[in-house]
Amino acid sequence: MKFTVDRAPLLRALSHIQGVAEKRNTIPILANVLMEHDGEVLRLTATDMEIAVVEEIPSEATQAGSVTVPAAVLFEIVRKLTDGSLIEFTQTDAESPLQLRAGRYETSLNVLPVDDFPAMVAGDLPHHFTIQGGDLRGLIDRTRFAMSNEETRYYLNGIYLHIVLEGKKNYLRAVATDGHRLAKVDVPAPFGVKEMPGIIVPRKTVTEVRKLLDNDGASVEVALSETRIQFRIGSILLTSKLVDGTFPEYSRVIPQSNSRLLRVTKQDLAAAVGRVAAISQERHRPVKLTITKDHLTLSATSPDQGIAQEELDENSVTYGGDDMEIGFQARYLTDITDQIDVEAEFAFADSSSPTLIRDTSQPAALYVLMPIRV
Amino acid sequence: MKFTVDRAPLLRALSHIQGVAEKRNTIPILANVLMEHDGEVLRLTATDMEIAVVEEIPSEATQAGSVTVPAAVLFEIVRKLTDGSLIEFTQTDAESPLQLRAGRYETSLNVLPVDDFPAMVAGDLPHHFTIQGGDLRGLIDRTRFAMSNEETRYYLNGIYLHIVLEGKKNYLRAVATDGHRLAKVDVPAPFGVKEMPGIIVPRKTVTEVRKLLDNDGASVEVALSETRIQFRIGSILLTSKLVDGTFPEYSRVIPQSNSRLLRVTKQDLAAAVGRVAAISQERHRPVKLTITKDHLTLSATSPDQGIAQEELDENSVTYGGDDMEIGFQARYLTDITDQIDVEAEFAFADSSSPTLIRDTSQPAALYVLMPIRV
Repeated sequence: MKFTVDRAPLLRALSHIQGVAEKRNTIPILANVLMEHDGEVLRLTATDMEIAVVEEIPSEATQAGSVTVPAAVLFEIVRKLTDGSLIEFTQTDAESPLQLRAGRYETSLNVLPVDDFPAMVAGDLPHHFTIQGGDLRGLIDRTRFAMSNEETRYYLNGIYLHIVLEGKKNYLRAVATDGHRLAKVDVPAPFGVKEMPGIIVPRKTVTEVRKLLDNDGASVEVALSETRIQFRIGSILLTSKLVDGTFPEYSRVIPQSNSRLLRVTKQDLAAAVGRVAAISQERHRPVKLTITKDHLTLSATSPDQGIAQEELDENSVTYGGDDMEIGFQARYLTDITDQIDVEAEFAFADSSSPTLIRDTSQPAALYVLMPIRV
Repeated sequence: MKFTVDRAPLLRALSHIQGVAEKRNTIPILANVLMEHDGEVLRLTATDMEIAVVEEIPSEATQAGSVTVPAAVLFEIVRKLTDGSLIEFTQTDAESPLQLRAGRYETSLNVLPVDDFPAMVAGDLPHHFTIQGGDLRGLIDRTRFAMSNEETRYYLNGIYLHIVLEGKKNYLRAVATDGHRLAKVDVPAPFGVKEMPGIIVPRKTVTEVRKLLDNDGASVEVALSETRIQFRIGSILLTSKLVDGTFPEYSRVIPQSNSRLLRVTKQDLAAAVGRVAAISQERHRPVKLTITKDHLTLSATSPDQGIAQEELDENSVTYGGDDMEIGFQARYLTDITDQIDVEAEFAFADSSSPTLIRDTSQPAALYVLMPIRV
């Protein structure tokens, strides 16, 4: 095979797909990128057998063909070539190395057989819809932090996407939870999505799809079955297996009657949590909230270092309920305040029950946080 | 004690000294910063018993005194306070916690007894000189990469500073070597330095002093004995033990009669080394230089990934000696080209002998690199 390609689109494509290629190299060919040229277009594929990413880029070929070479090394080389380079690839026969030439630089990359490169079969994908890149990004960004890491609860290691009917309108809803906190966000259901099953999109797929969504305007075509999901974003096609499990009945953990309402300015709250938590260097720094009329005092204690507290008054806080104290992990609280634009609304039941948190300007998103004893 | 201090100078001072405080916490008080107020000025001290840094900052006290608190926690807290804050510190008696108050934030930091804080005794420092910050920075930057890391050769774990007489003029010279490469740079001897003994400044001291040299214009007062060195930079005083060892007779490894001269543009060489070395992901990537009349070909081989090469021609290269091949570790070559401004001059003897490298615009600096077999 023999073809030329501009450095910029090749580098962009390799940066998209090299995150999917396996780094640990237990199965050597999974560390490779498959490059296929049909004479019209160059198609790059990487897979870890759970996810496959395919990207097409313009390229002139004098001889079509296909080859696999190490993805990380190719990415590193292309990254170091001069901006604006035209890169020429040549392979004389299927077993011989792939020659890469750019100006006076040339390299010979070892190949592995194209036939050994595993194909990812998407199968029949009966459900289709189109969603704006910005909407999909919102679903991911406002929930991903709450995904679990625990291998044993594999069905929590992803984002649960499903359709809900609320007040005669259908919504596409994303939910993630690790048992300590929960995040839920809705967007109006895109056309055609109504019959889709509830699915759990795995953590790595969430990460890789998110990387491809930096362009707000792009619309994303989604197709899915009970076991597979496929995202088409511009010239990129990402196919992934879904988590084979049942997402728990999350609606039971969302409190319905928390009546003590606290409103607090996001910026003041976030800064105070950071300063108060700085007293402790442990991972699970607890922060205590002492709440009285229009006052919120944050405090933290470290047996080694000392204690810290900060008071927010009626300039940042509105509260009219009974006086109360409640504790949260500082990091969990920060993960949620990071999602809030201007003002957070906390709805408490008592010191030991799940607390509801909302962004007062984003009614479509909702967070639940379990308190800890302080 | 009771005093106030502006956030900005306190943050700056803590950022300078917290690198010296011990992080591992085997001796708890070494993780603390000593804060002493004599009524006029606030003095902050941190030490690991090898280095001590003292910095004075303006502060108003209503009651003088001294206290020690955890350096890392205090730094983290001050960093998170609002820019422009005035910070008030109060300690009611010697055992009680140190209160820090800024606006509505307050913290109580656990203290350790001031008497347990180790004093660093500089002793008599008979040799004194003043050097421009930019000159000292040049001595450090052009040699520090060649310091050794090996514990067994502790006398190479630093920069050797000494006085040499060359052609009737005295120079202050810095040398570092790890046995594979050597870097040497001279500045005209400052007034008063002539009688100073040769000293080895330890690695950590080099790092900490370098951090304090970001302001070109500042002049640095240096005082030293056979066992201690002291740097005064503005309101900061850094005192350090010296390495108790003998630096090897480095001049014997500097080749005197290498006659094959290669000149090459730094930018082209550095880019080519990076691209060629990208084929290999090992730590000690060897790069081969094949040199013919006004041509330099760089090449590298990885058994797993393939081979790479790049040719530099008479546009970047001048060479008139016999054809030759020689190999170097890519990283060592890069460390040296990083020091070169525009053009490097290599002086070779043969493929197995030390190679001399100079910056053609910086005659005061010289590098020696041992080849490896390729």
